[in-house]
Amino acid sequence: MRPTGLSWRVVLVRPRNPLNIGAAARAMANFGFQDLVVVAPHPPVWQEARSAVGAEHIIRAAQAVAGLPDAIGAATLVVGTTAGSRRNLDRELIPIAGLPAWLQDRAPARSRAALLFGSEKTGLSNEALSYCHALVRIPTSPDCPSMNLGQAVAVCCYELARAGVVSTRPPRARVFLSEPANLHSLEHLFERIVGVLDRAGYTQPKTRQATLIKLRRVLLDLGLTNNDVRILGGILAQIEWKLGTRESEVRTLNDES
Amino acid sequence: MRPTGLSWRVVLVRPRNPLNIGAAARAMANFGFQDLVVVAPHPPVWQEARSAVGAEHIIRAAQAVAGLPDAIGAATLVVGTTAGSRRNLDRELIPIAGLPAWLQDRAPARSRAALLFGSEKTGLSNEALSYCHALVRIPTSPDCPSMNLGQAVAVCCYELARAGVVSTRPPRARVFLSEPANLHSLEHLFERIVGVLDRAGYTQPKTRQATLIKLRRVLLDLGLTNNDVRILGGILAQIEWKLGTRESEVRTLNDES
Repeated sequence: MRPTGLSWRVVLVRPRNPLNIGAAARAMANFGFQDLVVVAPHPPVWQEARSAVGAEHIIRAAQAVAGLPDAIGAATLVVGTTAGSRRNLDRELIPIAGLPAWLQDRAPARSRAALLFGSEKTGLSNEALSYCHALVRIPTSPDCPSMNLGQAVAVCCYELARAGVVSTRPPRARVFLSEPANLHSLEHLFERIVGVLDRAGYTQPKTRQATLIKLRRVLLDLGLTNNDVRILGGILAQIEWKLGTRESEVRTLNDES
Repeated sequence: MRPTGLSWRVVLVRPRNPLNIGAAARAMANFGFQDLVVVAPHPPVWQEARSAVGAEHIIRAAQAVAGLPDAIGAATLVVGTTAGSRRNLDRELIPIAGLPAWLQDRAPARSRAALLFGSEKTGLSNEALSYCHALVRIPTSPDCPSMNLGQAVAVCCYELARAGVVSTRPPRARVFLSEPANLHSLEHLFERIVGVLDRAGYTQPKTRQATLIKLRRVLLDLGLTNNDVRILGGILAQIEWKLGTRESEVRTLNDES
């Protein structure tokens, strides 16, 4: 069975070459993708890409945002692209041609998905990868594994369009409690969890960043629904209140001493 | 059954942008293609493409040739790419994903094939298309059908590599009489046929070019083997001899008058 179309957003993280932003937009237009978001482009790069002669409507409608969570937005499924180098990614690396089958059981029809591409030099950072439910790779020759950014976007868009997993209809507006939570909700939950762990003394300054990257992956892998997030939110509120109380108790004691 | 790999040559006909030549070479390297030939590039374009910083070994090894027959060379199978616009192509247009199945019955393993890309502005001319056994199209959105040249090369190379129809072994050196004739042989035969038709008064100055384009397609569609070409060559030699005799008879008569 062919999986039903998803509403895709393409996210370019810190692209350095305006021509690549333009090329990505053109490939998106070629294959029926419409939604482009660019994370933290250098202002002159962004300016040049948007003002290029013959720029696609997609690039004129594209947003630039400061951080990756804003770029992912309401997507409930996040897919990162990687050249699959030596880094230990802690995730199965799916060939792009296998992504449609992988999506089939995991993404309800017409839900929102984001496809992330890193910068030309460095690819996606480990932190960016920690936002991804799946990592995909274009199977390239070991002699020349790294693709040009615009061409990688073209091949991915081609493959997703070919497999029929690109919806031409707008994403569903209604949110069901039984469906996967979007990144916006999860990230809010995650920040509250981190706040609790910081206050509880679980995180250590030296390893905090690496710990958070691992924890975000663990949270993503739970596959929480909107209902789960609501329940966990209630639990967290109680703990926050308790920790908050203790802190104010301690503060009060200190004040008194 | 998966078709066995062919030895592919990528041919860019009159590309106008050196960045696209470089991008095509990079995509070829990404997917295990090695043989690039460029037809009639403008000298500064070719110079710039070859001297680009970080140019792939493929572009440094690429040849520039004056005409398409030289570029196709020893290939026995020629595939043209087209955006599939309004022109009447007189040929079935195969989606690129369907090309491997199409190749299966038509191309012996390890034989030579050429994949042609036209210039950025105009695509392949009707004359160039007349050299093609098959025309392929990347299925793009009707709203934005025309792809960037470098990205089109990337998608085609990706698709052929994905289907396993790219040989990593050198093409077979031995030529079998029962196998398809290569373009070099066919073009030689074609020129002799045209010579006979010109002398016989079959071609008319006004329609000659269009007639030759149709005739070349007819000749290609016969699927001649090397043995067929040998036999037809013998028949032509006899006709040429006869026509040549007649001409010299006429000349002699004129000289005498």
